[in-house]
Amino acid sequence: MDYSRAFDDALAKLHDEGRYRTFFDIERRKGQFPHATWVRPDGEEREIAVWCGNDYLGMGQHPVVLKAMHEALDATGAGSGGTRNISGTTVYHKRLEAELADLHGKEAALLFTSAYIANDATLSTLARLLPGLIIYSDALNHASMIEGIRRNGGEKRIFRHNDLDHLRALLEADDPDAPKLIAFESIYSMDGDFAPIAAILDLADEFNAMSYIDEVHAVGMYGPRGGGVAERDGLMGRIDIINGTLAKAYGVMGGYIAASERICDAIRSYAPGFIFTTSLPPAVAAGAAASVAHLKADQTLRDLHQERARVLKMRLKGMGLPIIDHGSHIVPVIVGNPVHTKMLSDMLLEDHGIYAQPINFPTVPRGTERLRFTPSPVHGPGEMDRLVRAMDALWSHCALNRAELSA
Amino acid sequence: MDYSRAFDDALAKLHDEGRYRTFFDIERRKGQFPHATWVRPDGEEREIAVWCGNDYLGMGQHPVVLKAMHEALDATGAGSGGTRNISGTTVYHKRLEAELADLHGKEAALLFTSAYIANDATLSTLARLLPGLIIYSDALNHASMIEGIRRNGGEKRIFRHNDLDHLRALLEADDPDAPKLIAFESIYSMDGDFAPIAAILDLADEFNAMSYIDEVHAVGMYGPRGGGVAERDGLMGRIDIINGTLAKAYGVMGGYIAASERICDAIRSYAPGFIFTTSLPPAVAAGAAASVAHLKADQTLRDLHQERARVLKMRLKGMGLPIIDHGSHIVPVIVGNPVHTKMLSDMLLEDHGIYAQPINFPTVPRGTERLRFTPSPVHGPGEMDRLVRAMDALWSHCALNRAELSA
Repeated sequence: MDYSRAFDDALAKLHDEGRYRTFFDIERRKGQFPHATWVRPDGEEREIAVWCGNDYLGMGQHPVVLKAMHEALDATGAGSGGTRNISGTTVYHKRLEAELADLHGKEAALLFTSAYIANDATLSTLARLLPGLIIYSDALNHASMIEGIRRNGGEKRIFRHNDLDHLRALLEADDPDAPKLIAFESIYSMDGDFAPIAAILDLADEFNAMSYIDEVHAVGMYGPRGGGVAERDGLMGRIDIINGTLAKAYGVMGGYIAASERICDAIRSYAPGFIFTTSLPPAVAAGAAASVAHLKADQTLRDLHQERARVLKMRLKGMGLPIIDHGSHIVPVIVGNPVHTKMLSDMLLEDHGIYAQPINFPTVPRGTERLRFTPSPVHGPGEMDRLVRAMDALWSHCALNRAELSA
Repeated sequence: MDYSRAFDDALAKLHDEGRYRTFFDIERRKGQFPHATWVRPDGEEREIAVWCGNDYLGMGQHPVVLKAMHEALDATGAGSGGTRNISGTTVYHKRLEAELADLHGKEAALLFTSAYIANDATLSTLARLLPGLIIYSDALNHASMIEGIRRNGGEKRIFRHNDLDHLRALLEADDPDAPKLIAFESIYSMDGDFAPIAAILDLADEFNAMSYIDEVHAVGMYGPRGGGVAERDGLMGRIDIINGTLAKAYGVMGGYIAASERICDAIRSYAPGFIFTTSLPPAVAAGAAASVAHLKADQTLRDLHQERARVLKMRLKGMGLPIIDHGSHIVPVIVGNPVHTKMLSDMLLEDHGIYAQPINFPTVPRGTERLRFTPSPVHGPGEMDRLVRAMDALWSHCALNRAELSA
């Protein structure tokens, strides 16, 4: 067995398919985001604008967040020093969980080090707590949900993306008495489309299934207090478990679920991914709590965010670029080939100082490789103008197809 | 199907077995650790000393760590704003990875949000990259390694804890050409015993197996630069993959592996738990890097840590308490029953202001429930004296057995 060769082969495969990933070294400057410094591999520094981050509202540089983090560092120090059970629960964690329970109108919330592990740990633990559980999972669910569903080898059914008829058919085919859970996202981050949440919840009611929604690309951004699409649509009360992140619109780090007291207590007590890991640093919890609290009140940022996304989509569409528009804040431009996508991304960065990482398999299906732009309240008209002009020039330069403008 | 009842039943089981966990709400005061404030459920605040944290060297309140975190917050903001691939790689992450690669004398290192996910993601991905991989896993390996080994359903062999003959027998029984990996820890945190690292590596060589060591309870604390037990014993160069944490001796948060360039590149490129999760906040990476760099030079803290552990063990042993002593910094006192352990822990806290969380199943095997004390350089003679006297009094009060002092 030649181990080196096995690793080399795995890497060669990625190079051959044009989807080997190179990380760009980006240093944001507080207060100047989306402007940042790109440190090239040769050490040269270049000023760029970040157009692919998930700090959707610019909260990562908001004074209320940074003040809370500085204060917690000064008051309590760096790390929590333990797992939640063994000396790692602090007032900062409790406050943040209370903030999140309130945000979603649930009895309780439970923090994890990331929304990835919140999904993975919760879904895999539900399969253990509810023997015979069948999980109905949307075909485009995030990798972390897939990992959680797979982990304990429970029963799963994959329904075609947003396909209610298929979901119904799968539910009908199973034992009516079997425990069931429908797991889906409110906004699918790669296309930016919405789930038919109300209709899915109707099916959950009809078939006595629990419901699990991933709102990581919606919390902070949708709903009058930032509770997500389910809040906007008045549906939070009908959902059993809501998953969210503190690392995107809230600008910090960490993930969570919000649910009933008994569900949170059971996951807290049984999930290895919760029990056996050091809790978030108090300063991170403090910053996240400040961000959640701020966005409960600041509708202006949400409105501006949506407005910027609308304008960008309109302008890119106006040039005939193949963008996907489902009315959300996410702006994907389909290129459809990993090599071309990488080339476009490189030219945007090198020639225009615009950073949009190519998105390729396994993040999106092969053949749908894309650039995905993330406008925000801090991406002003000047930045947007430069992006639109650069895309127009590159599209012509590379002789890429444009949609029929009448389409 | 009555979901509420299923969750209630799962929780009732924990209550019945006396191992339902109550989190204590602890607020550390920077510069005063191990002293902290315990916020009781009724809101009353009490001053306590923390004796069960994993901030083994007090680095969580060290000025070099806090300064680095404040500076990074001021320079760059709160969160990284993305996954490592999509705008979430910064100079802070790169610097920390370089610091860690240097610490372990490896070509590269790879950061994760926790050592839990570093173990889980790396081990599960190795099973995918090396088809037919057989993982030989010590019976007392940490939950995160077990989860990673199980995840993709690969072949596994569990060898009896630290039992070289059993490990050899298992290796001999398998196809000599099959890819193999031996996964173990350098210090097992619940008993504080060491693995026979050199002998395990000899077996790895003999059977052409890769080696994977978890040093989370050793990095920062052992070896002349804090590289762990493998550094102390001059064995780092023989180990393929070293796993460590930034959340214990380094006092911050996060985990990592250190290995060859090609192994890190392959894990980076294929592990969902790495790819699909927001990277650590730059301030966390900055604090961790400062801590790692500091502990490469500060042998005084390591010496003091070992000295304090030696004294505590000597004093507890002198009173005939059933402590486990394998010569490491970990001081477990076996109680052997979840209800008694909880009672002792509660009395320590209520009557003596000493916080040591009860450790019970599944963290340790049933029947070995314990209190585990974690002395550190910031636990001075006064604190230790109070702990020893309290344990002496409680042991008599509860009429618990003492070892024969001649044993």
